[in-house]
Amino acid sequence: MPHFNFRYDLLATDGKARAGVFYTPHGSLETPLFAPVGTQATVKSLTPVQLEELGASLVLANTYHLYLRPGADVVAEMGGLHHFMQWPRPLLTDSGGFQVFSLAEMRKVDEDGVTFKSHIDGSTHRLTPEKAVDIEEKLGADIIMAFDECAEPHDRPYVERAMQRTHQWAERCLKAQSRGDQALFGIVQGGIFPDLREDSARTIRAMGFPGHAIGGLSVGESKPEMYAMIETVNAVLPEDKPRYLMGVGTVEDILNGVARGIDIFDCVLPTRLARHQAAVTRSGRINLLNAAHTHDPRPIDEGCQCYTCQHFTRAYLRHLVVAKEMLASSLISIHNLHTLITLAKDARAAILKGCFNEFAQDILAHMDGDEPQPVS
Amino acid sequence: MPHFNFRYDLLATDGKARAGVFYTPHGSLETPLFAPVGTQATVKSLTPVQLEELGASLVLANTYHLYLRPGADVVAEMGGLHHFMQWPRPLLTDSGGFQVFSLAEMRKVDEDGVTFKSHIDGSTHRLTPEKAVDIEEKLGADIIMAFDECAEPHDRPYVERAMQRTHQWAERCLKAQSRGDQALFGIVQGGIFPDLREDSARTIRAMGFPGHAIGGLSVGESKPEMYAMIETVNAVLPEDKPRYLMGVGTVEDILNGVARGIDIFDCVLPTRLARHQAAVTRSGRINLLNAAHTHDPRPIDEGCQCYTCQHFTRAYLRHLVVAKEMLASSLISIHNLHTLITLAKDARAAILKGCFNEFAQDILAHMDGDEPQPVS
Repeated sequence: MPHFNFRYDLLATDGKARAGVFYTPHGSLETPLFAPVGTQATVKSLTPVQLEELGASLVLANTYHLYLRPGADVVAEMGGLHHFMQWPRPLLTDSGGFQVFSLAEMRKVDEDGVTFKSHIDGSTHRLTPEKAVDIEEKLGADIIMAFDECAEPHDRPYVERAMQRTHQWAERCLKAQSRGDQALFGIVQGGIFPDLREDSARTIRAMGFPGHAIGGLSVGESKPEMYAMIETVNAVLPEDKPRYLMGVGTVEDILNGVARGIDIFDCVLPTRLARHQAAVTRSGRINLLNAAHTHDPRPIDEGCQCYTCQHFTRAYLRHLVVAKEMLASSLISIHNLHTLITLAKDARAAILKGCFNEFAQDILAHMDGDEPQPVS
Repeated sequence: MPHFNFRYDLLATDGKARAGVFYTPHGSLETPLFAPVGTQATVKSLTPVQLEELGASLVLANTYHLYLRPGADVVAEMGGLHHFMQWPRPLLTDSGGFQVFSLAEMRKVDEDGVTFKSHIDGSTHRLTPEKAVDIEEKLGADIIMAFDECAEPHDRPYVERAMQRTHQWAERCLKAQSRGDQALFGIVQGGIFPDLREDSARTIRAMGFPGHAIGGLSVGESKPEMYAMIETVNAVLPEDKPRYLMGVGTVEDILNGVARGIDIFDCVLPTRLARHQAAVTRSGRINLLNAAHTHDPRPIDEGCQCYTCQHFTRAYLRHLVVAKEMLASSLISIHNLHTLITLAKDARAAILKGCFNEFAQDILAHMDGDEPQPVS
């Protein structure tokens, strides 16, 4: 089994914001970055060529979904997830932990693992830390996540129990790992409680993972609570390893995350919003079903360099939405993903130039809608 | 108004099969060719870049659909259909006649035109030859079709009445045309009756259109009836103008059409089948939902050069189908369109080499399923 030396080079800091490079067997990742989500081994409605063209580097896939369908063995037979979905660049799989808690039915958690019923056909399954690592090794992503338990973030007794289990399971994941070419990331839990978050970050840090994630956020807490937890955790996590904020993907949260030292983001939001005809820009969202766009010759975003904005009018996109054409989802997804990927790339460039705060404040000051949160 | 000299150059014949070039303001068309259908100004699930890459030259759009939604004025305001849907190559619009008869509700035909209710919202509309040409001029395709009446092909009294009206309407379309940069094609009707087809072909021929279409076929008649009508009509139509067989698009029918002197084909079948997980190959159809493909590492068609076959296994495509992922439709559409477009291109190459009959017989002899019809 080949051994890959997973290394994160911190190239520059600007306040707490960081610009770096994380090296993986399928190429190096320039951080900060935003990763599109390909739940079922496809970023919905897009081909890998379209993903490359819109600037994606890291792509996520969900272990829970792929374990249930088509099964990890089918993916392994086809040469692993990179070959199966034809994504030649770095891939990340989560552990299935979050989906077991958010999607599956009738779950029973014990110290050893979780028994649950599939949301697809009601069949009974069991995931343990060892089983999750086994599945993730069969899938073969470059970055794999430890099996964790995500709790309701305000319920302290539940959060404490889930955090303790997450720590025990993290140790078991490390022991279960047999491949040397996958970076196993540990996940910090602890809800909205600073003392628990600090405890969790110290415990996970001590295990020596090549990278760390912050889990259990963006699940119902307020934005000030989320940002406070990021600060607490990042004060403990080491500087020389990447930090991944799981499931976060609005313009505002990415800027606030980067400002607090986050390197990697992912979220289903840009593609999910696209399927509900909402376009994401740095200044807010645009509902393309709105009749105001019927005669509008402008692109979604006049400054945007994506394929959609370089070619299509709002009038055309609205027509596709009204006519329920599949191409609407594809074209809006291309734009939305490009917006967030480019936001993270531009944040990186600003950090390297030492002007991240101005960059972020300028965007946040021009956002429509709700009052933006301050960056720091 | 610019005047474009629409010219068809007949480069070679092989039996009755023809290889030629038809010149249009958006580029020359090498015939025989198969044209994908973009009913609502989009070939379903595909971007124009994907269409170019799979080899499309001519693309169709439906006047009936675009008239109802978003309206011809919106398309005209956006610079016409080429700009609206961002297809830089030749476009063809039908006249709406066929859809009025197949989709609209409560239609009333009189000598002047047709009154009908929209299949979308039940609103009442009226199409006449003059109105159809006006809409097609606003849309701005390179090839536009005369407004015709399509009848049940075996009902002789109805077929005769509809044919007479089609001839009168063809004259009115010619008179109504005001743009000099669109080729208006006349449509031959006449059901399955050789004498009516011959009469119609002579009448339409005499009007001096720059190209001709055979309408009212592939609507319920048998294959021998269809092939006989093509022979009857093409014996009358001039050699120096292109011949378009409307709505025909199976491997077998394309080969049989080319063998009888057809130059242009179109059909919704390849994209419609793709949305129902059926892949089209030269030897038959493959249902990708079939469990036999679960572990199949082969592409749909091992000899195929399309993006889908060059990258994805049947196992992956089946997974996308089972998981109801939109990408399944896109990838199978790419393959299906590529198959028919390449079939027509290869037929052209065979005609130029003088071996079309062997080419066609070889494909028809290796088809699965129903007994293939002889080419000639």
